[in-house]
Amino acid sequence: MTPIIRVTREFTFEMAHVLWNYDGPCKNVHGHSYRLFVTLSGLTLNDPENPKNGMVIDFTDLKRIVKKEIIDVFDHSITVSRDFEREKIRMFSEMFGKVVAVDYQPTCENLVTDFAIRLAHQLPPGIKLHSLKLYETANSFAEWFASDNE
Amino acid sequence: MTPIIRVTREFTFEMAHVLWNYDGPCKNVHGHSYRLFVTLSGLTLNDPENPKNGMVIDFTDLKRIVKKEIIDVFDHSITVSRDFEREKIRMFSEMFGKVVAVDYQPTCENLVTDFAIRLAHQLPPGIKLHSLKLYETANSFAEWFASDNE
Amino acid sequence: MTPIIRVTREFTFEMAHVLWNYDGPCKNVHGHSYRLFVTLSGLTLNDPENPKNGMVIDFTDLKRIVKKEIIDVFDHSITVSRDFEREKIRMFSEMFGKVVAVDYQPTCENLVTDFAIRLAHQLPPGIKLHSLKLYETANSFAEWFASDNE
Amino acid sequence: MTPIIRVTREFTFEMAHVLWNYDGPCKNVHGHSYRLFVTLSGLTLNDPENPKNGMVIDFTDLKRIVKKEIIDVFDHSITVSRDFEREKIRMFSEMFGKVVAVDYQPTCENLVTDFAIRLAHQLPPGIKLHSLKLYETANSFAEWFASDNE
Amino acid sequence: MTPIIRVTREFTFEMAHVLWNYDGPCKNVHGHSYRLFVTLSGLTLNDPENPKNGMVIDFTDLKRIVKKEIIDVFDHSITVSRDFEREKIRMFSEMFGKVVAVDYQPTCENLVTDFAIRLAHQLPPGIKLHSLKLYETANSFAEWFASDNE
Amino acid sequence: MTPIIRVTREFTFEMAHVLWNYDGPCKNVHGHSYRLFVTLSGLTLNDPENPKNGMVIDFTDLKRIVKKEIIDVFDHSITVSRDFEREKIRMFSEMFGKVVAVDYQPTCENLVTDFAIRLAHQLPPGIKLHSLKLYETANSFAEWFASDNE
Repeated sequence: MTPIIRVTREFTFEMAHVLWNYDGPCKNVHGHSYRLFVTLSGLTLNDPENPKNGMVIDFTDLKRIVKKEIIDVFDHSITVSRDFEREKIRMFSEMFGKVVAVDYQPTCENLVTDFAIRLAHQLPPGIKLHSLKLYETANSFAEWFASDNE
Repeated sequence: MTPIIRVTREFTFEMAHVLWNYDGPCKNVHGHSYRLFVTLSGLTLNDPENPKNGMVIDFTDLKRIVKKEIIDVFDHSITVSRDFEREKIRMFSEMFGKVVAVDYQPTCENLVTDFAIRLAHQLPPGIKLHSLKLYETANSFAEWFASDNE
Repeated sequence: MTPIIRVTREFTFEMAHVLWNYDGPCKNVHGHSYRLFVTLSGLTLNDPENPKNGMVIDFTDLKRIVKKEIIDVFDHSITVSRDFEREKIRMFSEMFGKVVAVDYQPTCENLVTDFAIRLAHQLPPGIKLHSLKLYETANSFAEWFASDNE
Repeated sequence: MTPIIRVTREFTFEMAHVLWNYDGPCKNVHGHSYRLFVTLSGLTLNDPENPKNGMVIDFTDLKRIVKKEIIDVFDHSITVSRDFEREKIRMFSEMFGKVVAVDYQPTCENLVTDFAIRLAHQLPPGIKLHSLKLYETANSFAEWFASDNE
Repeated sequence: MTPIIRVTREFTFEMAHVLWNYDGPCKNVHGHSYRLFVTLSGLTLNDPENPKNGMVIDFTDLKRIVKKEIIDVFDHSITVSRDFEREKIRMFSEMFGKVVAVDYQPTCENLVTDFAIRLAHQLPPGIKLHSLKLYETANSFAEWFASDNE
Repeated sequence: MTPIIRVTREFTFEMAHVLWNYDGPCKNVHGHSYRLFVTLSGLTLNDPENPKNGMVIDFTDLKRIVKKEIIDVFDHSITVSRDFEREKIRMFSEMFGKVVAVDYQPTCENLVTDFAIRLAHQLPPGIKLHSLKLYETANSFAEWFASDNE
């Protein structure tokens, strides 16, 4: 059997953020327990001699990549836009050990897009980044699909 | 970044229904805790001057639309088909404060289709109703996709 | 090892109900996907010759008892109080195949109490009904504890 | 039936916090999607003339109390200890719209204790605050029980 | 209304497996609580005279098919590859009542593909097997989509 | 504030087991995704100079203890009773890399009791093992409480 299969692993990270200039309560610094689902697609390996026989990717490898590119960067951090209010960012950085300054408003939509860019070039040959799903709260999430952006 | 992103919010409502003429236990009046997932797709706004910068739609706006068009209509109601047994519906309406009479058998499949129709014309310009998922019980659900019905 | 252990199994049922005379939306007929957790306590059997070795009760036996006493009675039914509006109950019974008329207002609190009474005398010797938890919606539940009512 | 029943409602709020002086990643500003379970106990009302017949407390009333005393205070805020680093708190308050300064290190244990104090005197007569459960992440939580602290 | 709708039902089974020749802990016999989501798509029946009015398929029929073709085969079994170590399989079969020997390494990817093959020809006319999702652990799953393999 | 607080962390492990001599499907080798909730109780530390200020126990320490005493032992293993069929255990050990032979029938009740014994003497002074909850399937679990066994 060598079908195309999609494989997904869920990750979590605990992050504060702030939406400067927003006209709702998210303009305050607050935080979320984010849940990230990373979905890859590829052919299932059919080679009994290979330890990875029957796999699209070893879940251990997927975990290592996402941990390095995303979780280690954003977990237990505060993520803010560097586009404006540079003085605040400087104060943030002095006061907090881990401020992630990004080039965009850190909404759920923009975060999931940034994550897609960070992961796209880290995957082994033949494996495609299919989609990402990012829960910001227990009942709201954003999704990036490769097929929507090709 | 101006990618196409899908955003989803989950809603719940508590409803009784009955499937007249069905040949199983659902022919009795009974009820469910329904879970509805509404998924929209669109471009993420990239305009630092706009309070909605970085969003496809403000989740608050999505919530307001779905609450008005669906939750307020169906929550804490009994939904029945008006296609037959009109006498029963008259008695229902006398006995219960909130009977929703619809033009179809209120299965999970038909409800989710009706919800798609109710929402289709309520969305802001540039935002597409991508799909709806409706859980009837904890382990069964129906989904409507725009791409299946174009 | 012969410790006292508590064992729990979760059940679900889909039911409509109505709270006559209530001053909120539950005065309308509506429904819920109820989740019921039944917890028993007892000594773990320590007898290698017995097929039930290592168990307080075989989960299969627990399932059979709860199914017979509760699930088969209330699943896919509408439950109403018989204490008043007898004319409505008569019409209910004519219109619906499965109306459960009870001697109490069918709130979550009263249902869980009724379930405790129904189960109390159906358990094998030496096994105690420890507690019941009944979810009415995904975020609200009532609990009956033997220790609260002794 | 007038048994003692425990009723519980789940709430959520999105909050940033920081554990100053801690020797792990929580010393950075970060955030969580907190889940709070509030459990009350009391006699179920047995009075068919009363709209609240069959209830320990109307879930709507419980929701109103918890929203006012806890959710409105902590949701979409950053909570910090005022016990030290007063200069940082002053800067926090200038930069963020909603800083909650508390008299304790805002760990999960201390937050749940604070919530118990805030709720204890807000309940109707005859209803007891039984316990609180506060999830900080999806797999860790703290609980306050009245019976542990009497 | 005769739209195309997707319907899904979740199933669970408890299975041991072993990945011979793998270079991680899954090379040991171990087990999982598998969750399988079966998604079909088709036109919703629009015929008030038919008991299945408003349905793509009666969930009861879907349950019966999946139970017979998959759950009854794999639940409470140990699944192993017959491709090598035939002596071990012989011993397995002597020692355990229910050994399922398959022609592939029983990874999550290969199992979900096998399930697709088992179900493909068991569905009623006009109903398509749309996709399968198989959770191996609480945070990892594989998916087979018809559209990926046409 | 120095109240008594209970803190809980959830763990998961993937294990096969077999109930020899049982008269149901669990007499076959099969497996589960176990979920273990470990609950400790103690006074919350009130010492602003201590990095653990505001904690009953650092969740990191709790995780380290449970990982060493339980997860590392049972995860990705097959657990069997050594009380009988010694020849089978010998063959198991030859065929599988990780066979855990225990002195009891490995039911959910006996496993949770064994875990309580393994953890009881590994906790820091002043912290009590309050209870353990072990899910064997998604809808059944066993609990050990210190208060039931004192």
